[in-house]
Amino acid sequence: MIKNYRMVLEYDGSRYDGWQKQGNTEQTIQGKIEHVLERMLGQAVEVHGSGRTDAGVHALAQVANFHGNTGMRPEEIREYLNQYLPEDIRIKTVEYVAERFHSRLHAQEKTYLYQIEMGKKKQVFERKYIYGLFKELDIDAMERAATFLIGEHDFKSFCANKKMKKSTVRVLKQIEFKQQGSRLLIRFTGNGFLYNMVRILTGTLIEVGLGQRKAEEMKKILNSKDRNEAGFTAPPEGLFLEQVCYKE
Amino acid sequence: MIKNYRMVLEYDGSRYDGWQKQGNTEQTIQGKIEHVLERMLGQAVEVHGSGRTDAGVHALAQVANFHGNTGMRPEEIREYLNQYLPEDIRIKTVEYVAERFHSRLHAQEKTYLYQIEMGKKKQVFERKYIYGLFKELDIDAMERAATFLIGEHDFKSFCANKKMKKSTVRVLKQIEFKQQGSRLLIRFTGNGFLYNMVRILTGTLIEVGLGQRKAEEMKKILNSKDRNEAGFTAPPEGLFLEQVCYKE
Repeated sequence: MIKNYRMVLEYDGSRYDGWQKQGNTEQTIQGKIEHVLERMLGQAVEVHGSGRTDAGVHALAQVANFHGNTGMRPEEIREYLNQYLPEDIRIKTVEYVAERFHSRLHAQEKTYLYQIEMGKKKQVFERKYIYGLFKELDIDAMERAATFLIGEHDFKSFCANKKMKKSTVRVLKQIEFKQQGSRLLIRFTGNGFLYNMVRILTGTLIEVGLGQRKAEEMKKILNSKDRNEAGFTAPPEGLFLEQVCYKE
Repeated sequence: MIKNYRMVLEYDGSRYDGWQKQGNTEQTIQGKIEHVLERMLGQAVEVHGSGRTDAGVHALAQVANFHGNTGMRPEEIREYLNQYLPEDIRIKTVEYVAERFHSRLHAQEKTYLYQIEMGKKKQVFERKYIYGLFKELDIDAMERAATFLIGEHDFKSFCANKKMKKSTVRVLKQIEFKQQGSRLLIRFTGNGFLYNMVRILTGTLIEVGLGQRKAEEMKKILNSKDRNEAGFTAPPEGLFLEQVCYKE
């Protein structure tokens, strides 16, 4: 009998072309997982992620599901996957879910974490997981700018996909700033994020923190609905998909 | 005027052939640093490390010194080095030291840290800094075995260099075990360590922890002065040079 399985996984995105399979390239997280599952199930399978992560972006708890016909228990599937997946992808849990469950369509809320090094300290052991800005940031100004971004807005100016035909309206529920020594952690929680949205939000907030923009400009940027009005796209290595929430 | 400079540095040893320069290969930590210093000073320079670290072994605080004729202040030298060194090597401090100071000859005590994952948890973000044993260890038995190794002994059985002509007597001051969840940290402190000594000590202790050897065998191994009597050489990725102490 075909069952629906949900998995939670973490990965180091450094050497991948992102989550989503693209043509015949195998260097994607989705591609790697499908490859192992296909060997296990003896037939083609599609793994649905809660969302794409860009090339170089990491995940602490991506959620994905797939349908499969196997007598293997979820725990056995988890062990099989971890045995054959590369060392930079790890399946944390596998469980049965309702037939109709879909990781992307039913996701209610996502949290992304962005890590920035503000000090002069060159990172050695965490260099692939943090954006080395090496400049001080005015976090108060960034927090003020963030207040203009919270809520339901058309985030078209913060979307890298210029041909986006679907709605670019999203609800940004929270932007949380946390300083740990010379490191700044920014957490974005919302009901969904557009292509590159977290990285463009981060880049724009960094420009505010550097004094290159005023906090109040956020209103103008949102209203313009023009990507060119927003700031730079912060690099992928600082970004982690941290949590995906579903209605129970 | 020629001055003597002491630096403290950290590095991720994953992609290097160890600390020590070998012939014309540049893929060593020493080689990388000398290359940048030579450009800075306009002449050849030799950097003396407190000791060699093997290929793949990391350092949290390696100590090294060099003599140079420059008007640059220590802080400027540090910044210059960090600007041109690869991102997996970072100079933490540079300071003037007495003309006669030598990083290796004057080192009094060293501490090495070895990290082992005992659980089934595949490491993703720290996979290059921990030995994935994925088996439970009897830490009590390992602590008992360690008591036989503490003190002044001829550690020839724990030395990979079979042609070692100098004394293989060393003082092992402490072996400390610390469990953090499914991770075991072992710290070795002594007045000096032979080639591969920490990794062979670790491998032998792991064999005790797995029940393949008895704690009391350590006496016999030490007495044999035969490398073949000791355990396997634990892999380099779990090992860090953590501290080097000098008499004030």
